Amino acid sequence: MSDSKHVPDKMHAVYLTGHGGPEKLEYVESAPVPSPAAGEVLIEVCACGMNNTDIWVREGAYGTDDDPDATASWRRGADEPSLTFPRIQGADITGRIVDVGAGVDSSRIGERVMVDFSIYNGDGVSLADIDYIGHGRDGGFAEYAAVPSEQAYLCHSTMSDAELATFCCAYLTGEHMLDRAGLKAGETVLITGASGGVGSGLIQLARARGAIPYAVCGRAKMDQVKAIGAEGVIAREDDLTAGMYDMLGGTPLDCVADLVAGDIFAELINLLRPEGRYVTAGAIGGAMVQVDLRTIYLKHLAIHGSSQGTRAAFQRLHRYIEDGVIKPLLWKTYPLSQINQAQADFKSKGYVGKLVLQPDTKWQLVEPWYAG
Amino acid sequence: MSDSKHVPDKMHAVYLTGHGGPEKLEYVESAPVPSPAAGEVLIEVCACGMNNTDIWVREGAYGTDDDPDATASWRRGADEPSLTFPRIQGADITGRIVDVGAGVDSSRIGERVMVDFSIYNGDGVSLADIDYIGHGRDGGFAEYAAVPSEQAYLCHSTMSDAELATFCCAYLTGEHMLDRAGLKAGETVLITGASGGVGSGLIQLARARGAIPYAVCGRAKMDQVKAIGAEGVIAREDDLTAGMYDMLGGTPLDCVADLVAGDIFAELINLLRPEGRYVTAGAIGGAMVQVDLRTIYLKHLAIHGSSQGTRAAFQRLHRYIEDGVIKPLLWKTYPLSQINQAQADFKSKGYVGKLVLQPDTKWQLVEPWYAG
Repeated sequence: MSDSKHVPDKMHAVYLTGHGGPEKLEYVESAPVPSPAAGEVLIEVCACGMNNTDIWVREGAYGTDDDPDATASWRRGADEPSLTFPRIQGADITGRIVDVGAGVDSSRIGERVMVDFSIYNGDGVSLADIDYIGHGRDGGFAEYAAVPSEQAYLCHSTMSDAELATFCCAYLTGEHMLDRAGLKAGETVLITGASGGVGSGLIQLARARGAIPYAVCGRAKMDQVKAIGAEGVIAREDDLTAGMYDMLGGTPLDCVADLVAGDIFAELINLLRPEGRYVTAGAIGGAMVQVDLRTIYLKHLAIHGSSQGTRAAFQRLHRYIEDGVIKPLLWKTYPLSQINQAQADFKSKGYVGKLVLQPDTKWQLVEPWYAG
Repeated sequence: MSDSKHVPDKMHAVYLTGHGGPEKLEYVESAPVPSPAAGEVLIEVCACGMNNTDIWVREGAYGTDDDPDATASWRRGADEPSLTFPRIQGADITGRIVDVGAGVDSSRIGERVMVDFSIYNGDGVSLADIDYIGHGRDGGFAEYAAVPSEQAYLCHSTMSDAELATFCCAYLTGEHMLDRAGLKAGETVLITGASGGVGSGLIQLARARGAIPYAVCGRAKMDQVKAIGAEGVIAREDDLTAGMYDMLGGTPLDCVADLVAGDIFAELINLLRPEGRYVTAGAIGGAMVQVDLRTIYLKHLAIHGSSQGTRAAFQRLHRYIEDGVIKPLLWKTYPLSQINQAQADFKSKGYVGKLVLQPDTKWQLVEPWYAG
C-alpha cells in the first residue's frame, strides 16, 4: 500500500439506490474509498463517460426472456443478479493509478490509464458470462475506483482525460459489432443512430478497418456526422430505402450496424445483399420487431446480437487511440454532482458524440471540434 | 455423341405449367429429351427425391421482401426470374450417364451418379446468386435430365437408386445449416421438424460431426426419430421448454436447427445458451415471427438463414454416403405418373424420411428399415 497516504478514506460518488427514475441517483460526499484487492489497482478518476446502459440499468429497462415489459437489469439471463444497491455506475474510467493491491508492482502508481470496463468471467474470448464495471461492481461515477490491474491500460496520448473517457464502452461495443458482422475492408455498412456514442464510434471504427460507412441520423446533425467520416448520410426523417437508393443506385449493403431497430428494422433487412449481415447492440427505436424468416433464409442473411466486446477488440481499440486512428467525439463535460442534468441532456439526444462526467474538483469545460 | 443411339427423342416427364395447385402438374408422354450442352452429361433418371421446395415453388409460396403474401418463387430477390414455364421440377437426381456434351470424356458414359442440384452462378463458396436444377433449369421429374458434368458425382454404394435419391437437396440443406451454425463435436443441437426430409437428415449429419442431436416431431413418429439417432425426442404436442428441461436439466442448448418456427420460435430462441446459434432453412409453422432484439444482443445470439449449400458441403455429403456414415431414410417410392398422389402424401406428413419418384419403367416398391 505504498503511497496510499495520499488517498483519503472518503470520497464523493453517485449511488444508484434502486431501479427507477433520476431520483434513484444520490450524490454522496462520504462514500468509502474502495481498497484495491489482490491483483487490482486503485484509480483516482479524472473523467468517466456516460452511456445508454447507465440509464437503462437505472430504469431496469431490459425486460426478461419471458416478459419483454418486466423490470430487469442487464444480465437478465443470469441466475445470480450481480447488480446490488447501492451501486456506483460509470463504465468509461480514465484517471491515474494511486495505489495497488497485493501482487501488483507499485511502479504502476502514477500511470495514466484507461480502463477496459469488462468483467469477463472467462477467457475474454467468450462473452457468455460477461458483466461490467459500473454494473457488477462499482465504477467511475466517483472520485476513486478499484479495477483489475490488467484492465487498466497505460495510455500514451495527447488527449485530455475527458476525451480519453469517450471511448471505452461505446467503442468496444462498436468494434465487437463489426467483428460479429465480419465487416471487411472495402465493404459497405449502414449505421443507424449514427450521432450517438456507439453510432459515431462505428463510423470511425468502420473507416479504421477500411470499410465504407453510411449513416442515418437526425436532420440537424447530418453535417456533423458527415464530418466524422460517413461516406453518405440520410436524415432519419426521410425515406430510408429511397435515400440508400439515391446514394448507391440500388446496390445493396454488405452490412447493417443497427442501434435503432423498431419501425425501420424490416427496411434495414431488405437493404442487405444476399449473404449480408445485420448486427445490433441496442434498439432505441423499439426492440420488439417482426421478421420474415423466408427473407433470412432465401437471402442467406445473418442477424447477430452483440454486447460489449472481447479483450482482443479492446486492445485493438487501445492501439487505435494511441496511434491517433480514431478521434474523440467529446460534446460536453459535467461536474459529477450534476449527473441528473447530464442524463437529462443525454436523453434529449440534442448533440453528437459523448457526454462525460468529471469529479467536481477535476471538471473542465470543453468545446467539441466537430460542432460545426 | 457416342452411344447416343440408345437415347430416344421423346420421354415421359412432369411439366409444371404455372403457379397454383396440383392441376399445374401435367404428366406428358412426349417431352423432348434434352441434349447435353458443352460440359454437360445426359442422365437416364433412375430416381428423383421430392422436397418441400417442389411444392412451395408450385404454389409460389415464398412471398417477396415487401409483401409476405405475394405469390413468388424461390429466387424472389433476383431481378431476372429464372423459373419459366413449362418447367420440369425435381432436384434429387440419381441415374446413369448415357451421353456427354462437348468437352466431356465419353468414358463417363455408364457411370452411376448422384447430382449436386445447385446452380452456383459463382465459385460454390458464395451462395449469393444460387439457383437449382429443377427450378432454374429442368430437373429430374422425367426420364432424362442434362446437368453439368462436374456436378454428376460417380457414386460407389450398395444403396438402391431410390435410396441414393433421398439425400441431395435435404442433406445438402442440412449440412450447410450446421456449417452456418458452426455446430462442433460435443455440442448440442435441437432439431425441429425432425421427421421430415431435412430434419431427419440433420439428425444423422449432426451425429456425423460428433454433435448431440435432440429432436421435436409428432408423437406418432417419436420412436422412428429416436431410431435415426436422436439423443432425445420431444413430442410436438407437448410443452417444448418443459421437455428440454426434463432432458437437459436446465442446461441450455448450443444450437437450434429449426424448420418449423411459427409459434415455437420465441421458445427456441430462449432455449439457447449465451453465444448460442439459431439456424433456419424453412418455416413450415409460419415464417413471420416476432423477435425481442434485447434477447439477441444481451445473449450474443446469432440467427442464420440458410438455403442449399456449398460445393464443399456437397462433397462432404458424397463422402458420407460412400463411406456409409449416413443411412437412407426412404419411406416410399411412387411411379412418376402418380406425382399428384405422391405430393398429397408428402403434404399429409404421415411418414418419416423421404418420398421418391421413379420413372414408371423403373419403379420398385420399398419397405423402410426404420418403420418399426
